[in-house]
Amino acid sequence: MKLRTFSGMRPTGKLHLGHMAGALSNWIKLQEDPGYDCFYGIVDWHAMMSDYANSSVIKGNCREVLLDWLAVGLDPEKSTIFVQSHVPEHAELSLALGMVTPLGWLQRNPTYKEQILNIQNKDLSTFGFLGYPVLMAADILLYRSSVVPVGEDQSAHLEITREIARRFNNFYGEVFPEPDILLTPTPKVPGTDGRKMSKSYGNSINIADTEKEMWNKLRTMMTDPARERKTDPGDPDKCPVWDIHKVFNHDEDEKADLASGCRTGSIGCVQCKKALKEHVVSMMSPIWERRAYYESRQETLDDILWNGADKARVVARETMDAVLEGIGFVPRR
Amino acid sequence: MKLRTFSGMRPTGKLHLGHMAGALSNWIKLQEDPGYDCFYGIVDWHAMMSDYANSSVIKGNCREVLLDWLAVGLDPEKSTIFVQSHVPEHAELSLALGMVTPLGWLQRNPTYKEQILNIQNKDLSTFGFLGYPVLMAADILLYRSSVVPVGEDQSAHLEITREIARRFNNFYGEVFPEPDILLTPTPKVPGTDGRKMSKSYGNSINIADTEKEMWNKLRTMMTDPARERKTDPGDPDKCPVWDIHKVFNHDEDEKADLASGCRTGSIGCVQCKKALKEHVVSMMSPIWERRAYYESRQETLDDILWNGADKARVVARETMDAVLEGIGFVPRR
Repeated sequence: MKLRTFSGMRPTGKLHLGHMAGALSNWIKLQEDPGYDCFYGIVDWHAMMSDYANSSVIKGNCREVLLDWLAVGLDPEKSTIFVQSHVPEHAELSLALGMVTPLGWLQRNPTYKEQILNIQNKDLSTFGFLGYPVLMAADILLYRSSVVPVGEDQSAHLEITREIARRFNNFYGEVFPEPDILLTPTPKVPGTDGRKMSKSYGNSINIADTEKEMWNKLRTMMTDPARERKTDPGDPDKCPVWDIHKVFNHDEDEKADLASGCRTGSIGCVQCKKALKEHVVSMMSPIWERRAYYESRQETLDDILWNGADKARVVARETMDAVLEGIGFVPRR
Repeated sequence: MKLRTFSGMRPTGKLHLGHMAGALSNWIKLQEDPGYDCFYGIVDWHAMMSDYANSSVIKGNCREVLLDWLAVGLDPEKSTIFVQSHVPEHAELSLALGMVTPLGWLQRNPTYKEQILNIQNKDLSTFGFLGYPVLMAADILLYRSSVVPVGEDQSAHLEITREIARRFNNFYGEVFPEPDILLTPTPKVPGTDGRKMSKSYGNSINIADTEKEMWNKLRTMMTDPARERKTDPGDPDKCPVWDIHKVFNHDEDEKADLASGCRTGSIGCVQCKKALKEHVVSMMSPIWERRAYYESRQETLDDILWNGADKARVVARETMDAVLEGIGFVPRR
């Protein structure tokens, strides 16, 4: 039997090369692995938690995320791709799980405390935001996922999911498998300013950027700060452009030449960036093509999401039936 | 246009004469009033909040509540009678409303603080229980109720519902009417020990009690404690049995005779109770008959709830469409 897995992304805008090299490349590996049955959700309710005061952007962001997913190779024929709010069982299961979730687990959740402290421009002290891990548990458990691919930063949330599943099963019988954490590699992809690539830093190179936009970002990207003139020797290990080479340039000979050229000051940064650009562009070309293909086909996009929701609901309803029977409610028709 | 109204009861067991003389008699008045369109829900998710560790009783309790409702005259042809968990939109709307509900409103809710302090034998420090007023707001707003009949003790909760509706409308447009509170009279119905009739005090006279059970309870019911012997003069104003006379005995001449007989010590408590019993039994007889009729018809009961849920969902879905459109999510198929 195939192992089910759920992963989601919040629709907060266009995705970037960091997403592509990290989560999305792992998702595609799972999609192509015959041992897995993959559910990928655009989790719009989760976006509401932080963007409730500006929710009109969510619809457009869902579209961008879907286009990026399809562009990089998520395939609605192989994976179930859908929008969370199109599957009402997410809300139902979240309500059910909240009944057995101790408040303390949520209040002491380190991510919660950190975000409440750090995100100053939004009011996050809502009931919804406190329940973030409950809804996330519902997302995962609704598909009775047995493994969940996550980056290091999400592992605390997944720990709560496992605890909620255990507690629910304790009360109502073995309804859920306790999902295993599949820690997936997330290569270091710095943004144009050398910090981690992130939409919120304004330093990201987006999947949807044109060749020209991408080159403009690469061209002006920060390099080894100690290398002021072309003839100064540089240190690739201190250069964010080099980190991107390591992820996207698989021509080892060329990389050896570039590295030694940098260290001896015999090639300039622009030359190194041009070489990188060639690799990025050849990698991105089919991705841009797919993105352009779907971009002009709104009906196809709608159908992908609607059919995905229909597929997801088949599993979601089975799970909710087991949940409601376990609790012992009056059966539905 | 008819005014919509929603009211609910938690399925925690059999209903008693206090419910009958209070909420239920008000519900029936609204049901018979052509100006109202009534939705009456057995709110099983709310029962889960306190009984999550013992949820297997909920199903049977739903049946008892339904039987009591039908027995006293709630009519599925006139009112929409259903179980909350059969209408998944309650969970969806609750999730949506939680996004805009400040935690402080819930933490400072006096009923919440009181129950956390007073109910010692159950662990109520769950995420679900903190969200009680959010789910209650969803129950009411899902039917865009313009009035809600409530007893005095529920008016704080309804105030939160109004505030949540206002806040939601502020963000997303005029989706909900702000429901008006229809403060309904709740006559004083003491239990057998003279305290307020309540299941948790173990002093209640239930709608489902047989004539014999009812008489046993009335016969041994507390009276004016100062009247020790039959010949002692009594004071009806200090007698719980007299409070019940006031609610259910509408024969003013007889009541005048009984009161003066009590004050002069010329009639005993048993005679007074027997007189009360006659009135209660003649009031209860058609109610018991209806209860017995439905009790043997499980399929009819199922159909009432399922058809009620179907009717409720027509309105619930309309509301959710408006909610999701107001928020601005990607439309569903």
